[in-house]
Amino acid sequence: LIFPSSHIPGDPSDREGHSSTQSSHRLLAYSDALISIIATVMILPVAHTKVEDNELTESVHLLLTTKIAVYLMTFLIVTVAWAAHIRLFQVIVRIDDCLALLNLACMMLITFLPYTFSLMATFPKNILGLLLFCGCVMVIGVIQSVIVLYAFSRPFLLNEQIQISENQTFYKHHILKVIMRVPIMCFFASIFSFIFFQLSYVLLAIIIFLPYISQCLKWCRSKAIGQVEETPDSMLFYTYLPNEPLNKDRVEAFSDGVYAIVATLLILDICEDNVPDPSAVEKQFGGSLVAALQVYGPEYLAYFGSFATVGLLWFVHHSLFLHVTKATRFMGLLNTFSLAFVGGLPLAYQLTHEFPRNSRNELEAIQISCVIIFFAGIFQLTILVVALYNQRETLHPYVWYGGREHVFMLAKLALYPCVALGTFFLTCILSRFSAPIFHLMEITVPFAFLVLRLLVRVGLALLRLIFCPDRPDSRTVVEVEDETREPLNTLVT
Amino acid sequence: LIFPSSHIPGDPSDREGHSSTQSSHRLLAYSDALISIIATVMILPVAHTKVEDNELTESVHLLLTTKIAVYLMTFLIVTVAWAAHIRLFQVIVRIDDCLALLNLACMMLITFLPYTFSLMATFPKNILGLLLFCGCVMVIGVIQSVIVLYAFSRPFLLNEQIQISENQTFYKHHILKVIMRVPIMCFFASIFSFIFFQLSYVLLAIIIFLPYISQCLKWCRSKAIGQVEETPDSMLFYTYLPNEPLNKDRVEAFSDGVYAIVATLLILDICEDNVPDPSAVEKQFGGSLVAALQVYGPEYLAYFGSFATVGLLWFVHHSLFLHVTKATRFMGLLNTFSLAFVGGLPLAYQLTHEFPRNSRNELEAIQISCVIIFFAGIFQLTILVVALYNQRETLHPYVWYGGREHVFMLAKLALYPCVALGTFFLTCILSRFSAPIFHLMEITVPFAFLVLRLLVRVGLALLRLIFCPDRPDSRTVVEVEDETREPLNTLVT
Repeated sequence: LIFPSSHIPGDPSDREGHSSTQSSHRLLAYSDALISIIATVMILPVAHTKVEDNELTESVHLLLTTKIAVYLMTFLIVTVAWAAHIRLFQVIVRIDDCLALLNLACMMLITFLPYTFSLMATFPKNILGLLLFCGCVMVIGVIQSVIVLYAFSRPFLLNEQIQISENQTFYKHHILKVIMRVPIMCFFASIFSFIFFQLSYVLLAIIIFLPYISQCLKWCRSKAIGQVEETPDSMLFYTYLPNEPLNKDRVEAFSDGVYAIVATLLILDICEDNVPDPSAVEKQFGGSLVAALQVYGPEYLAYFGSFATVGLLWFVHHSLFLHVTKATRFMGLLNTFSLAFVGGLPLAYQLTHEFPRNSRNELEAIQISCVIIFFAGIFQLTILVVALYNQRETLHPYVWYGGREHVFMLAKLALYPCVALGTFFLTCILSRFSAPIFHLMEITVPFAFLVLRLLVRVGLALLRLIFCPDRPDSRTVVEVEDETREPLNTLVT
Repeated sequence: LIFPSSHIPGDPSDREGHSSTQSSHRLLAYSDALISIIATVMILPVAHTKVEDNELTESVHLLLTTKIAVYLMTFLIVTVAWAAHIRLFQVIVRIDDCLALLNLACMMLITFLPYTFSLMATFPKNILGLLLFCGCVMVIGVIQSVIVLYAFSRPFLLNEQIQISENQTFYKHHILKVIMRVPIMCFFASIFSFIFFQLSYVLLAIIIFLPYISQCLKWCRSKAIGQVEETPDSMLFYTYLPNEPLNKDRVEAFSDGVYAIVATLLILDICEDNVPDPSAVEKQFGGSLVAALQVYGPEYLAYFGSFATVGLLWFVHHSLFLHVTKATRFMGLLNTFSLAFVGGLPLAYQLTHEFPRNSRNELEAIQISCVIIFFAGIFQLTILVVALYNQRETLHPYVWYGGREHVFMLAKLALYPCVALGTFFLTCILSRFSAPIFHLMEITVPFAFLVLRLLVRVGLALLRLIFCPDRPDSRTVVEVEDETREPLNTLVT
């Protein structure tokens, strides 16, 4: 046996006598895959909006804006559903067949949400979309309540902290209360929709931002009347505090899913649309397949460009989360924002190559790409910055202030935002050469990542030379991160 | 801290002093996600083939057959690339930034393979597709060789067995030899394509089946001259034997990816195509959105049906692999076959609802769905049967012959094939009621899974009553699987 079986998450040997219970690891991984696909799917209608006459007219602009808004809202709603799913399965850590089947039913309804939302956006004054949406959310709420009731009737499925706790019933009621809040509000929203449908949309918005609103109110109150709220025992779960722990494995699995879908979005299109018709090749290109494929040239370029960018952003994300020891809710939120921008990348790249050379549209498309890359990167960087505020709990010592990898990690996370910003301003100044600048950026960034460690060392050595010229011995430049860790880092940060 | 950090796969604490090396777990999960998307993507051109006039004409039949062949071949080729990737990262168990970036480059080329293959299929006489394909494979081979050379120059990245082995150089040469075999043959194939392109296709077919051919030859030789081949030390990796171990986590991750993509394929289409145009609703349906959506009714039905079936097949797969302790190459092959059929399911379901009621096409579509479900299920069952032949090594004791979950697991795996077969024959006999029968099947199967444990107990009790009527006490019926394990199981199997 080459692989030690100790790592197998679903190893039935840890069943502790309950023959039909299982580790929930794979169920959650599958759910994450489903949800990440659904979260990114509404980018497709944006992608397939036909830009006619190679010109972004006003109406196309409006259509694109609507579709992008739908995409972002869907992404938000699906990630809210995903966060609720995480919260639920932080309480229920083991599953059995019945829970697995209930969860699948729940997933089916979640995957239907984007469609109902899309109906709402297309027919804002028709209440059908709203009713369907509320109906789905209510059924999901009921199924989740059934899951909670079922799990509390078999306590060996629960998190150990709840298992050994004395007030299980209190936990159960607290969790049920939190879960049922959303479907009940949806119920009212669907009733109001018959009377005054604008109110229903307000209600739905409140549902999404409810946890944040209540947190804000609590915080304001505690500041105003100086009351320090003591976190009771029950508040370990379903707290909605910014530092509420989030299952790191699931954040990674969800992010991997989104990155993978986004990286392959363009090849999906290419495989379907860009295989020329044999008869057309015969007629239009005299049977020359090479000539026929050259028409699609920009699309291949867009594919490789977007795959590389998404792949490298994944690489940065991977490096960051390797050093994260505990993910919090706030970090999860920032990660969601980063992923929402990543989802738009392939389209931006596709637009980049769709317009005639040196047109105003090409320049705009390139600048939009830079802005998207910038925001995707800057939110990743913010995750690290937020984590550093509580570094003892959330980060590995290597990347703490003064840790041996701290500067390197900062450089990794800052590379894409800096490059994107630089490219953006360069294209503003040298707008005639915007396309070559952009392509040069695409090509150099992967190599920059390869030699980043070297670059960081050289940069640190230069900083040393400028600010501490009294010890310019070349030996420490090479062994800089082992020997002179503290002074250098305090200098940089 | 709610989550013990011991389980985190990329925990940097196990870096053993090499500050820049990382666990490869997440890189592999991401690669699996990418490859599973690419493997299933060629089903889309099949899905979007327009069936005009609600009638499957000869030409559409031919087109569909070609596209399905392309889908199956792509699936096969991509899974071969995936198997090679698994093999490589069973040798290299830790990564650093450089390997991660090289792997991403490799992934980019693998995701491009389906397109080149699709070109080959559309223009079989044009060598461009062939050249592109061979080019991709050659570059992948070179990158993988670089990865091997890089990893062997930093032995702490390697599998422990190779790290402590004395003949590392021998290993390195063996692995390089196996990896380079494919690009070299592709090189010859691309050269031959200029002279006699049919030969190139033969060469490519040989490449894919090379391991199986060489295994067959070896086996024949050993049978013919009675020579028992001693497996040397080097043969722990890259053996191509049917019982070569396969990383179980990766088989699960890849399968999850395929199931997730396939489950959501139809909703992707629905989200994109089935949101009616507001002006069309106004004109054709007098502003009634409900009436407009009723046109899409069959598509929603197809979505829920296929999601449920794929979800339940995932559930069976999940239950099976929970009890698999070591996955072998042969089991991986059977799993691939099962997944290839799963990929076709949404289309079969879509066809089911596309034709007029009681037409010959509808009956055909329903029967095709049954056949696909049957094969997807029967290959899953075969995995268990194959595993049982070597149960001490590959399975958890619970599902061994005579284990307490053995009959239950068999029933779980046999449920879908049996139901599909039953539905198929019922639709043959009662062809007028084929659609109701099919819908009834869709609705009852999830409930059958819910009460399966009960059904199995009742079935066993009935079998006992029939074959061993001398001990028909009702008490043992309930506790049957604990007390009378052996006699019952020998009776059933």
